[in-house]
Amino acid sequence: LAGCLEWVKRQLFRVGEDWYFLFILGVLMATISFTMDIIVARLYAAHTWLYREIGDIGVLKYLSWTLYPTALAAFSTGFSQSITPHSGGSGIPELKTILMGVVLEDYLAIQNFGAKVVGLTCTLTCGSTLFLGKVGPYVHLSAMAAAYLGKMRTTVTREYENKFKQHEMLVAAQAVGVATVFGAPISGVLFSIEVMSSHFAVRDYWRGFFAATCGAFMFRLLAVFNSEQETIAAVFKSDLKIDFPFDLLETFFFLILGIICGIVACAYLFCQRWMMVAVKKNRLTAKLLATDKPVYTVLVVLLLASITFPPGLGQFMASRLTMKEYLTSLFDNRTWGSLAPNASGVAKPGELWQEWDHPSATIYGTLAFFLLMKFWMLILATTLPLPAGYFMPIFIYGAAIGRLLGEVVALLFPEGLHSEGPPRPIIPAGYA
Amino acid sequence: LAGCLEWVKRQLFRVGEDWYFLFILGVLMATISFTMDIIVARLYAAHTWLYREIGDIGVLKYLSWTLYPTALAAFSTGFSQSITPHSGGSGIPELKTILMGVVLEDYLAIQNFGAKVVGLTCTLTCGSTLFLGKVGPYVHLSAMAAAYLGKMRTTVTREYENKFKQHEMLVAAQAVGVATVFGAPISGVLFSIEVMSSHFAVRDYWRGFFAATCGAFMFRLLAVFNSEQETIAAVFKSDLKIDFPFDLLETFFFLILGIICGIVACAYLFCQRWMMVAVKKNRLTAKLLATDKPVYTVLVVLLLASITFPPGLGQFMASRLTMKEYLTSLFDNRTWGSLAPNASGVAKPGELWQEWDHPSATIYGTLAFFLLMKFWMLILATTLPLPAGYFMPIFIYGAAIGRLLGEVVALLFPEGLHSEGPPRPIIPAGYA
Repeated sequence: LAGCLEWVKRQLFRVGEDWYFLFILGVLMATISFTMDIIVARLYAAHTWLYREIGDIGVLKYLSWTLYPTALAAFSTGFSQSITPHSGGSGIPELKTILMGVVLEDYLAIQNFGAKVVGLTCTLTCGSTLFLGKVGPYVHLSAMAAAYLGKMRTTVTREYENKFKQHEMLVAAQAVGVATVFGAPISGVLFSIEVMSSHFAVRDYWRGFFAATCGAFMFRLLAVFNSEQETIAAVFKSDLKIDFPFDLLETFFFLILGIICGIVACAYLFCQRWMMVAVKKNRLTAKLLATDKPVYTVLVVLLLASITFPPGLGQFMASRLTMKEYLTSLFDNRTWGSLAPNASGVAKPGELWQEWDHPSATIYGTLAFFLLMKFWMLILATTLPLPAGYFMPIFIYGAAIGRLLGEVVALLFPEGLHSEGPPRPIIPAGYA
Repeated sequence: LAGCLEWVKRQLFRVGEDWYFLFILGVLMATISFTMDIIVARLYAAHTWLYREIGDIGVLKYLSWTLYPTALAAFSTGFSQSITPHSGGSGIPELKTILMGVVLEDYLAIQNFGAKVVGLTCTLTCGSTLFLGKVGPYVHLSAMAAAYLGKMRTTVTREYENKFKQHEMLVAAQAVGVATVFGAPISGVLFSIEVMSSHFAVRDYWRGFFAATCGAFMFRLLAVFNSEQETIAAVFKSDLKIDFPFDLLETFFFLILGIICGIVACAYLFCQRWMMVAVKKNRLTAKLLATDKPVYTVLVVLLLASITFPPGLGQFMASRLTMKEYLTSLFDNRTWGSLAPNASGVAKPGELWQEWDHPSATIYGTLAFFLLMKFWMLILATTLPLPAGYFMPIFIYGAAIGRLLGEVVALLFPEGLHSEGPPRPIIPAGYA
């Protein structure tokens, strides 16, 4: 038996300690991601409770809606910036730079980790008011953890620091970062390829796949153990009831959707760059950003929160939904356009899509207003010096464009399109 | 208007002619792949018709079952080998060598193209008798087309041959090859990464994605136009009725399934190498392979066809199914173990799964016998010097292992496993 154990031990060491560190990285980041999600959900629930329980006095309602995210965002900015100036933004551009070979030692220092975790949690708790996401900073967090694990490894194995192994771990960390936010390992690996500037080592592919799979599995496992989900299914799943909800003729509309999204993306990049320059050139904002970052955050978040105030403009942009509820509602399997007229009859009260259905603006109005307002609000939010991701808002924005186009197509062709055979109704969730 | 057209023309040229060639490559390979599938289906239907109509005399049935694939395989060997000696096997190892930088000019010469298309069509028509696939050679075909298009491009644009652009086209061709066989662009891109030996250029990623998407879309479009499929859905889709057909406890069985597949894969590689050496060392087979390749093919295929003869041993291995029907039947949503006892009552006659249900051997017996026999039969088939792929048989073999394990688990836990909540039945298709 002892010989057998010895043999197993030798085999385990033969595998190479890489894989153990990749496993640890995946499990660690999944646990942190899941814990963060829970804390964010609790803090968000506290805000909802406060807003609901505070009574019907307009001023109090307004203050409870705006001050909570403002305070959180100000804390997020102040706390993370006081520990390290590198913790703002998503961190993806800097990571690309590091992966190109430029050494930015401080950027992956473990001190940033705590600052970014706390800051990101506060940012996410602001929810759809701030309209910012988690993926970008989480990839940065994952890279920091990988760099730290790499340092630990050199201590354990008593080897000199190996630049190649560090690089491998960093690439795997990109995959883990995405995989543990969405529970989607393949997306993680594809992201880790796309983020590389010129060449991708195929050995990193397997390492990334392994670590991302460990991370995503652990993330889903935690959701099951926490009784949030019945089984280890996907995180943001669409609830389409049929396998392939499109007719061939609809490909034309998908083409149009692609063109629209391309144009909007170009406009977004152009406006975002212009806004960045404008904020830095304007004397007031430049001074605030240089010396009093939290004050700048307070001003911007107060503006954003005031606009999303539900009894005000917020009622036209479904602002009571969280980021996750935005996506879930936009992926709704039903056609809102046909539900809306008889809402009182068929639909149950309290369903997510009803947030989009304003009595006078209709769903088309709210979707269009949402797209119009969130365009500049998102650009304004990206100028904030707090840890925040810009993928998730863009996913939601794209889903809203798709939903609007889908609903319009469903309105134009209420019988659905069909090249041959029985007519197939248009399913706007597919467009979203 | 003329100015506008001129502007559009200039914009179109600005995109770079790469993308047009990638588009052409995708559409071309999809059309060839689809045409090939149709011809194979027709030729296979002719065999089925012959076998059914020839009457009940045993000898005639045997001859019609064995001679048709034997003749086709002999023709495949003779025709392709007479035009070029490079057309045997899958071509993937040689492609990997080329992508590493070794120049094997002849290997991508366009003369091979016709030989390999005709040879592969014949090989595929032999169907499950020969138990060989399409992916490997089709990737090789795609690479040949890419190389030829590259030469055409240098003629059109009057540039010198550019090694980098050639390499780009070859990598995109790998993705196109897989994408146009399965209609699955992402698998194609992942394959093109995995097939690279050390580094993968990220610019090839976008090119591969574009070409693979064009190819897969065209392939599915052709299926719709040909009224084979109602809409552009996936090619080999499992017909699972629920989103995530597993309980958490079943992860343990998936672990076992992974270990079993790993062990079988190692055994396969070991035995296949041994067989390759044995065939070359044995005086008779070595002489045949050197001078009379078709004769060797005839002998081997005759043996394989005799074993799969349905009234003989074939009845224990569902040998009347085609390669596609093998996969479709193994992905069947129902649990065969619970269907089999009351087959006469519930199940409709003529369903695919009934081929697996032998009155005395039961489904467990046929699946085990299938796995046992196909193991050495596949290894023997890989020694044949004709164009053939080895991915598809391995997919089917793996699906059969999964199905057998799934059916056994379903037999052991007829109520299903459940950590909490209502019991979930075991779904063997998930294992497959």
